[in-house]
Amino acid sequence: MENITIKVLASRLNLSATTISKALKDSYEISEPTKQRVRALAAELNYTPNTYARSLRTRKSETIAVVLPEIADHFFALVINGIESVVREMGYHVLIYLTHEDYEREKEILQYIKNGRIDGLLISITKNTITSDHIAQLEQENIPVIFFDRIIEQLQVPKVVTNDFESSYQATEHLLNCGCKKIGVCTIFADLELSKQRIMGYKQALKDNHITIDVDQVLCCTEDDKTYDQIYHKLQSVNRPDGLIAIVDKLTLPIYQACENSGLRIPEDLKVISFSNNPSASILNPSLTTISQPAFLIGQAAARLLINSLGPKYEQVQQDITIIPSELIIRTSTSLTNR
Amino acid sequence: MENITIKVLASRLNLSATTISKALKDSYEISEPTKQRVRALAAELNYTPNTYARSLRTRKSETIAVVLPEIADHFFALVINGIESVVREMGYHVLIYLTHEDYEREKEILQYIKNGRIDGLLISITKNTITSDHIAQLEQENIPVIFFDRIIEQLQVPKVVTNDFESSYQATEHLLNCGCKKIGVCTIFADLELSKQRIMGYKQALKDNHITIDVDQVLCCTEDDKTYDQIYHKLQSVNRPDGLIAIVDKLTLPIYQACENSGLRIPEDLKVISFSNNPSASILNPSLTTISQPAFLIGQAAARLLINSLGPKYEQVQQDITIIPSELIIRTSTSLTNR
Repeated sequence: MENITIKVLASRLNLSATTISKALKDSYEISEPTKQRVRALAAELNYTPNTYARSLRTRKSETIAVVLPEIADHFFALVINGIESVVREMGYHVLIYLTHEDYEREKEILQYIKNGRIDGLLISITKNTITSDHIAQLEQENIPVIFFDRIIEQLQVPKVVTNDFESSYQATEHLLNCGCKKIGVCTIFADLELSKQRIMGYKQALKDNHITIDVDQVLCCTEDDKTYDQIYHKLQSVNRPDGLIAIVDKLTLPIYQACENSGLRIPEDLKVISFSNNPSASILNPSLTTISQPAFLIGQAAARLLINSLGPKYEQVQQDITIIPSELIIRTSTSLTNR
Repeated sequence: MENITIKVLASRLNLSATTISKALKDSYEISEPTKQRVRALAAELNYTPNTYARSLRTRKSETIAVVLPEIADHFFALVINGIESVVREMGYHVLIYLTHEDYEREKEILQYIKNGRIDGLLISITKNTITSDHIAQLEQENIPVIFFDRIIEQLQVPKVVTNDFESSYQATEHLLNCGCKKIGVCTIFADLELSKQRIMGYKQALKDNHITIDVDQVLCCTEDDKTYDQIYHKLQSVNRPDGLIAIVDKLTLPIYQACENSGLRIPEDLKVISFSNNPSASILNPSLTTISQPAFLIGQAAARLLINSLGPKYEQVQQDITIIPSELIIRTSTSLTNR
């Protein structure tokens, strides 16, 4: 099949390539009859502009990238829906890249992106991302970057997050109000800022309620294949919690399963709250009290910041942090029980 | 900031652009000391090849696209993970495009893709996709296409699906074995081939068991915002089913909620099976019997077919259909009960 280029159109119509190009761009320099002839032939031959060639000239890809750890996760899926709801209206395309929590892969993806494919980047880092050079490098190439959810605090780019500290504080107070005496918190992240904030919120709530912090009640399950065993072991121990905050939804399943297998009843023996956007929360056994994060709104806000930063105003928003609050939704897993 | 090109490197080192280019490609024509000088300067100035320029020359983007309806869905999330597990090893990049069930958007995305951005396409169509011209057009541009899950049967491209007919047949027989007398099936798709196959499997199982098919027991909820009401109304009716097959996981939540709100107990009053890959199935109230689709394997198989089709063997596999069987996992929602 012949490759239909501007040159082909020009030769068929006996016009110059420049005339064809201008006609296709609806230039005032070209007469209407000529434009019509060009458009008609372009339609007939199914001519489409070569995006690579165009991008090479304009250095604008009309495309933004979203780099994030995974999508088998309702939070991130909703963020992407929020991003797309904004970006599409502006005529931009969205490319989604998954790091699968692999720091090296994140670096590779950013290197790939840097080579001229996109106009801007929305990123939520891997749980193992320890430096920010690979992200700062995009900034140096004048590719604007916006962080969402999982951020690197010290990097001076706009960030969109939820109120991690306050949400966790509120969850802890809720468990105290439900009569819990020994509250634990469970994370799968050793280093992520959001995890630190949530644990700090938990500790501050205990402190403000004059409860001594017991480091044994902070359970850090950083190895995927040992998460269930760690939780099960903790729930079997003498020093087991009677209330537990899961700082990611991924922990809900192993916590429920560990309770089932160790004969602990939720909420009678253990009250559970998860940071979760899982629509199934209301039909779990028992229904799950959640901190529901405004994932869709986070996506929208991050996308708007990025679109704005593609214009000349970028410097002004450079250091902003946007905080969109989460919501505590109380269900059976933290019901008051007679004990 | 200066744009570091091969010309810049050439001028700084007082070499020709051709020499620089060959040195960067490790050509045998260039001496080792020269290569080292070139590499050192390229590293120092942070030179990266312009992918657009390279793509323009080679017409290979080393990128494949995955076009699918949504990702807030465990099935599709796992398919993508399967695709990435294969494609990444081959050094390809994956671009993910979401249609959000919008047929016009699907056409726009394919038009965008056609303009030279990708080497091949993996696609699962929207529930409203009624023609295949926009997909066939990619084939005509020599961009290979592979269907997964949601296919257009008559289009002669390779397809990867699960055994929709047999799975549904098996689900229906399971409900019959559990004592159900009036089995219903619930879909949200009017036209998708997988939906037709699943309903056909259900009907065939009834027929083979000498049970008259009652068209009232085939519930089609095509409008998102009316799904719950339709199910609730059906469960309130005199002719309500005592067993129900949900052909997508999205229906699990409204079915459970409608039972809760109409005082029907699962499994005593209604037994439920969903086509579902939701990890929460085992901790629902009650735990949910599922047809678990091999989403990850479907992704892997589709990706392998696409990668193979990028070579010269494409014609040979053009008409293949790959069927990877699903698995019935029996849980409490279809438990035998004394009635």
